[in-house]
Order: sequence, then structure tokens, then C-alpha cells
Amino acid sequence: MTQETGSGSRAFEISHHRLECLFDGIFAIAMTILVLELKVPELEDRHSVAEMARHLAHHGATFFSYLFSFCILGLLWHRHNQHYRHLRHITRGMLALHLVQLAMAAFFPFCAAVFGRYLTNPLSVTLYAGCLLVFNSAALAEWLVAERAGAISPELDPADHRRYRRRNLRACLATGAIFVLYLAQALAQ
Amino acid sequence: MTQETGSGSRAFEISHHRLECLFDGIFAIAMTILVLELKVPELEDRHSVAEMARHLAHHGATFFSYLFSFCILGLLWHRHNQHYRHLRHITRGMLALHLVQLAMAAFFPFCAAVFGRYLTNPLSVTLYAGCLLVFNSAALAEWLVAERAGAISPELDPADHRRYRRRNLRACLATGAIFVLYLAQALAQ
Amino acid sequence: MTQETGSGSRAFEISHHRLECLFDGIFAIAMTILVLELKVPELEDRHSVAEMARHLAHHGATFFSYLFSFCILGLLWHRHNQHYRHLRHITRGMLALHLVQLAMAAFFPFCAAVFGRYLTNPLSVTLYAGCLLVFNSAALAEWLVAERAGAISPELDPADHRRYRRRNLRACLATGAIFVLYLAQALAQ
Amino acid sequence: MTQETGSGSRAFEISHHRLECLFDGIFAIAMTILVLELKVPELEDRHSVAEMARHLAHHGATFFSYLFSFCILGLLWHRHNQHYRHLRHITRGMLALHLVQLAMAAFFPFCAAVFGRYLTNPLSVTLYAGCLLVFNSAALAEWLVAERAGAISPELDPADHRRYRRRNLRACLATGAIFVLYLAQALAQ
Repeated sequence: MTQETGSGSRAFEISHHRLECLFDGIFAIAMTILVLELKVPELEDRHSVAEMARHLAHHGATFFSYLFSFCILGLLWHRHNQHYRHLRHITRGMLALHLVQLAMAAFFPFCAAVFGRYLTNPLSVTLYAGCLLVFNSAALAEWLVAERAGAISPELDPADHRRYRRRNLRACLATGAIFVLYLAQALAQ
Repeated sequence: MTQETGSGSRAFEISHHRLECLFDGIFAIAMTILVLELKVPELEDRHSVAEMARHLAHHGATFFSYLFSFCILGLLWHRHNQHYRHLRHITRGMLALHLVQLAMAAFFPFCAAVFGRYLTNPLSVTLYAGCLLVFNSAALAEWLVAERAGAISPELDPADHRRYRRRNLRACLATGAIFVLYLAQALAQ
Repeated sequence: MTQETGSGSRAFEISHHRLECLFDGIFAIAMTILVLELKVPELEDRHSVAEMARHLAHHGATFFSYLFSFCILGLLWHRHNQHYRHLRHITRGMLALHLVQLAMAAFFPFCAAVFGRYLTNPLSVTLYAGCLLVFNSAALAEWLVAERAGAISPELDPADHRRYRRRNLRACLATGAIFVLYLAQALAQ
Repeated sequence: MTQETGSGSRAFEISHHRLECLFDGIFAIAMTILVLELKVPELEDRHSVAEMARHLAHHGATFFSYLFSFCILGLLWHRHNQHYRHLRHITRGMLALHLVQLAMAAFFPFCAAVFGRYLTNPLSVTLYAGCLLVFNSAALAEWLVAERAGAISPELDPADHRRYRRRNLRACLATGAIFVLYLAQALAQ
């Protein structure tokens, strides 16, 4: 395998367009199946407004988690959008790091469901932040790998380049801090 | 963040094509998972036509809600189709308003399920209309933001332009009226 | 609305490419969620091959329905593939007939699940064939509407044109015959 | 049907681009619904870290199966990515073999769920390997059919060509060996 990569053979090139499609597809699905965690309430009196309001309010945290997680995925998508078009080609290492990001995006609805159900449990926050931490680390690593492989478009302004790297790093540090904080809290319980 | 937007840097541009893909993806999924609410009946006599007919008829409202909601999503998709190609570029504000629309589209199957189950409960209609109201308001706001940002193609006929705005406004008012009406009815119960 | 259509304004044109995306998206999802009906067996002895084999065999009809329905959707997708690229533009009527086809495609997993569970119940076959009948009728109607609207590419060979129409008609008649046959059987029970 | 194929009529050509879209769509969905098997734990004490940790650890095999299966699908997608762009056109036989691959990809989340639940049951491994064996065999058969139909781009380097064929064959043999091994073990129980 290593030899094949090392030979730099064009035959092992990955389609920029198709990886984008796969990314957009997985994000679209992850964003939509977040909602599958919201369950239709079972009412005793079908016509009772009060009973339905009580049921919906009871799942308020799930609704909050849904909206919050949708925003997070939207933000990650937006960031990918900005970075991805500066990549001129995709190496195998970059593909592998992309798949790590996609695995985390597909795993995210599960984290969001656990988070929405157990908002006050430190372990659910740890899981949620951990998923984002892996995503952000893979995104940062991909950018560094792309840099080393000369895969970043020379048209990208060096100031933007530095800004991207800084922003990626900041995202890693922020999710890392939350992860460590809640992990410590979970272990202390 | 604000400074970055203020600088009007090309590096923060959003891909017109990819946002379209994300939109189409989320709509395709929302339209398809509407059907997940339809449950296979549990029959005591596997061969009994009468029993299955009774079960299916019992969930008639769910079928109606499925078809109705599919048409609504089809209509919203059609409207987006017409408006979106007149946008020459996407600013951050437009992306945020787009994500609000997408969050509502992804949330719609839940509203449709509640609506189909509790057709006669004023709160379920309020929820359904409220979801559409937010969608329509975000669509209208996006059009106005696009106008101010000079993002609307100059090739768009001014008469069509006015018509789009009027139509968006009409959709907001209609869903808003239903929302207020049923909210009042729910509160009066 | 009618006036707007009547004016033949270019502003109400529907994107050929995006309708194709929506179609492919909905078909991809419908084909994949067929499988959600297959349930992981609950075994008493986790290691027992015999028990798992019994469980899987018990749901043999569901597996058969899954494969059969996947083939049907593949066939419908293939037919759309061949016809669609001869359409030069999409009118509103054609869009409406397209949405009918898509609603049936999204509804199909439910029909397949009922069919797989109650293979010997005439009503489940009626439902299955009825769904396909509506799909095929909408496809035939769309082709005729496209013909009248001058939307079919002049490059299409007249012999192929006639063949397409004949094939669509044949598909309608076949599913219609099965539908009527099983409906009669269901009513006779 | 055979005559139509035999005539080599251009009217029966399949769109290279759309089949790619369908493939990417089904893979994106299959990769994302793998996660639906992960269930939110039901805790007695909402705040207990220990209880949640126990629940998550209890489903460790499911998490492992999720990640492993995601990698497998990523690998299959990557391989398709490399082979597919060397195909200049798609014949009916190739489409049929493509649909077999897609049916297996859509079926894969079910196999992954069974595998994750019953890791130590030889039949679940047999099912998992069997699904991959059919996928790999169809991929190999498609490549051979494409070769015979002259559908492979002449730009493809003969060395790469041989390597692709060898790699496909190796994948078939590997999954075939695992399939046979575990089938024997299952039958011996």
C-alpha cells in the first residue's frame, strides 16, 4: 500500500467532486436524522392542549439539543465549505482524515440524542465534546497534511491561510477544554 | 468574526452549488422520512383483508398528513428552485437564514407526525403552522437581505422581483394567520 | 397562479438539474430505508446458530420483499434515467406529475414492509401494486404532457419515442391488471 | 429486451454521472444509518456517570461494529472512486451488477447491526462476510464485463488495469475465505 502511495501514481487520485458529494450527503442526512430522536407524544386525551403542551415541555431539552446540534453541524459544514475549495487534490492521508470527520458527523446524532436526554450528566457532555474534538482534530490534521503535500491552492492568500489554521486550532482547543473539564467532573463523581 | 465579514474577503465566500446540494439533500430526506411515521399494522389474522383495511383506515389521518406534508415540501422546494438561481452569491447572513430554513425542513417530519396523529388538537396545528411560519419568514428575510447585499442577479425582471417578494410575504401572512388562529384556540381551551 | 403559468414567463422555469438531484436523492433514500424494516433478532442464547437461523428464516418473506422492492426501484430509476434526459425543459404540470412519482417512491418502503409482512394477504398486494400503478400512470401522463408542451428533445429518434410510450403504457397495464385482480380478491374475501 | 440491448441503440445508454450520484447517495445514507442501531441508554438515575458508563460499555461491541463497518464502507467507496472514472460508458449488464453492489451496500447496516449484537455468533460473521462477498464479486464481474464491452478508458495504464483486477480478485478471495470458514463453523455447531 505504502509503495503505491509513494509512487505518486495518478491512478490513485481521489475525485475532489465526489468527496464533496459524500460530505454534503452525510451532513444532510445527519442534520435530518437528528430529528428522529423527537418522539410523537402519547396522549390519553387526544384533544387536550394542556396534556400535549406538558409532553412537549417535558422534552424541552431534546428540542434544545436538536436546534443546538443543527447549528453546530451547520457551522462545521460552513467551515468545510471554506477550506475545501482551496484543496487542489486529495491524497490518501487526507481521505483517511476526511473519513474520520465523516464518521464523527454520522455519529453526532447519537451524541446529540444522549446529550438531549441527559443534559445534566457530565458523561453525556464529555461524549458530545469528545465527538467534536475528534472532528476538529481530524480537520486540523488534514489541513496540515494538505500543506505538507502541497495540496493547498497557491491562490489562497497567506493571511487567510494562517487564519484558517488558527481557527482550526482554536476549535480544537475549545472542544478539548470542554472535553477535559467534563471528563474530570465525570471521573470525580 | 464581525471584522472578517466586514472585510468582504473573498475567502469567506460560500459555494452557491454546495448550498444547493445541501438544500436538495435535506429536502429529499425530509420528504422520504415523512413515511417512517406510517407503521406496519399488527394483524391477529395474517390473511384477513377486513382487519388490515380497518387498521389502515384507522390511520387515515396519518396518510392524509403524509400526502399533504409531501405536497407542502414539494411546494417549498419549487419556490426555492425559482428564487435561488437569481442569487449571484451567498453572504454569511443569507447562509444563516438558509440554515434556519433547513432546520425547519428537517423539523417538519416531526410536526407532520404530530399533526397526523392529533389532527383535531389545536396545538398540533399551531406547531405545524409555526414551523412553516418560521420557514417562510426566513425565506422572506433572506430575499430582503440578498436585495440589500446586491446579491440578486440584475437579469431578474423587476416585475418578477416584486412578484417573488409579494408571494413570500403572502406565504408568511397565510401561515402566520393560521398560527395565530390556532394558538388562540389552544390558549382558550 | 393560472395567469402566471399562462404567461409562459421564463421566471417560472424549473431547473432540469435540480429536479434530477431531488429524484436521485429520494430514490437513494427509499432504496436504503427499505432495509430498516429488517429487525435484528432477539436471541435467548447469544451463541446459538440454530436460533439465529430460525429467526432469519422466519423473516424470509421480508428479505424477499426487500430484494424484490430494491429491484423494482432500480428498474424505475433506470427508466427515469432513459426518459428524463430527452426532456429539454420542465413545465409546472410536469413538475406536479414528477412530485406524484416521488411521493409514490417515498411511500414505497411502507408498501414493501406491509407486503413483506403479509405476503399472502390480498390487500397488501393491492397496496403494493396500487402504489406502482400511480407511479407508472404519472410517468405516462408526464410523457404525454411533455409531448404536448414540446418539451421532448427533437434529437430523440421517433422509433425510440414510440417505444418509450409503449413501454410506459405496458407498465401501467401490467400493474393495473395486478391491482384490479388482487382488489377483486380482497373484496371477495 | 435482449434485442434492444443487442441493437446497441444509444437511446438505452445510462448516465455515468447519475449512477455516480445514486452510488454516492446510497453510500452516504448507509454510512449514516449505521448509527441508528446505537440506542440511547435508559438510566434510572439521570445524573449517574457510573450507570451511563456501564450502559455504554455494555454496547461496546456495537460501537466497535459501527466504526469497523464505517471503515469498510469508506474503503469500498474509495475503491469505486478509483475504478469508476475509468469507465467510459455503462452497459445494461454493468448497471445490473452496479445495482447488486448497491443492494448489498444498503443491506450492510442490517449486517453490521447483527454483527455488533452477536459478535461471537458464527452466523452473524457469515452474514457479514457474505454481504461483502456478493459486493466484491459483483464489483469484479462488472470490471470483467466492462473490459469485454470495451467500456474501459484506453487512457488507463495497463499496469494499473492489472492491479485493479488483482485487487478486486484479492478482495473476493479474502471475504470468500472468511465466509466459508465461518459458515463451516456455523454448520458444525
